Amino acid sequence: MRADARKNRDHLLAVAGAVITEQGVDASLRDIARRADVGLATLLRHFPTREALLDALLRTSFDGLTARAGELEMSSSPTDALVSWVRDCVACAHEYRGVVALMTAAIEDSESALHASCVTMRAAGTRLLTRAQAAGAARTDIDGTDLFALIAALAWLGDQPSLAPRADHLFDVVASAILTSEGSGDAKTEHRSRARS
Amino acid sequence: MRADARKNRDHLLAVAGAVITEQGVDASLRDIARRADVGLATLLRHFPTREALLDALLRTSFDGLTARAGELEMSSSPTDALVSWVRDCVACAHEYRGVVALMTAAIEDSESALHASCVTMRAAGTRLLTRAQAAGAARTDIDGTDLFALIAALAWLGDQPSLAPRADHLFDVVASAILTSEGSGDAKTEHRSRARS
Repeated sequence: MRADARKNRDHLLAVAGAVITEQGVDASLRDIARRADVGLATLLRHFPTREALLDALLRTSFDGLTARAGELEMSSSPTDALVSWVRDCVACAHEYRGVVALMTAAIEDSESALHASCVTMRAAGTRLLTRAQAAGAARTDIDGTDLFALIAALAWLGDQPSLAPRADHLFDVVASAILTSEGSGDAKTEHRSRARS
Repeated sequence: MRADARKNRDHLLAVAGAVITEQGVDASLRDIARRADVGLATLLRHFPTREALLDALLRTSFDGLTARAGELEMSSSPTDALVSWVRDCVACAHEYRGVVALMTAAIEDSESALHASCVTMRAAGTRLLTRAQAAGAARTDIDGTDLFALIAALAWLGDQPSLAPRADHLFDVVASAILTSEGSGDAKTEHRSRARS
């Protein structure tokens, strides 16, 4: 891509990110184009669908989450790694209101521009889940898709203005369902020591 | 209300129920009026807002859930009563795709036509939760609003086509977060005896 084309694309992405943060993922593409001072056709030349635009916006965050899973696998206990990563995912999905429903659809739809990113993210989570299961810290009757579903549900809860103040508490409740009582014990110890520090 | 006015209202409600079942709660009011063979103004005379229309549609189900909570309180163990009732609520909220987000907003918004129904439903659930907590069967760090939030999250999961096949499994996972290990034990025994019968 030539330098000026890259610059135009980056400008469109920055504007789209701002508009979608304000209005959610159903934001009007026409509005985004207008705010970026280009025609709709120009926006669609760069991002032919809403999913393609969201994929570009989320790609950096998703790549970050995948890398973070690798780091946590090296540095933290199975429980802490899993819980921290799930928390990061919920925060990321919460960045653009409504994106979780699109991600949930995209993971089963290989035609969606978001598909590859979501599959990669689920694979990273599955590795952390399997590690926690092997250590006896996570229940063994759930898989990476269940984990992805619970992350999506938590992100959805955080998107509801009336429940946002309870999001952290609800996170702890749902996380406790993923962990075994052994894993929960670890997590509680870790939370207490974090609270003290 | 005169008999013919009541008949018109019932006809509008039946059509609205069918359209919203097909299209979700964002269904066009204009479409509903057209399918019912009336003008939009007539629809709005009966139901001035989308929330008022949904309230009328849901009122019967909500009243049923409140009555059911009372029956379960008399007839079932604290764990079984709570879990059965939560399951019924999730099924009810799932009837109209997207209604959970509206219910979640309405419960904090006393101006919404759905507010009173949602508050009544939450109160019924709170009674069952408190009873289970007193019996040591449910965790004591959650309240009726948390329970309502978890029901909403489960209904949202069921609304996502890609996750619908896992809805029952995810229900069990989240229900286990509400119950103490003692309560879970009861619920498991009950599930096994149901599976055998």
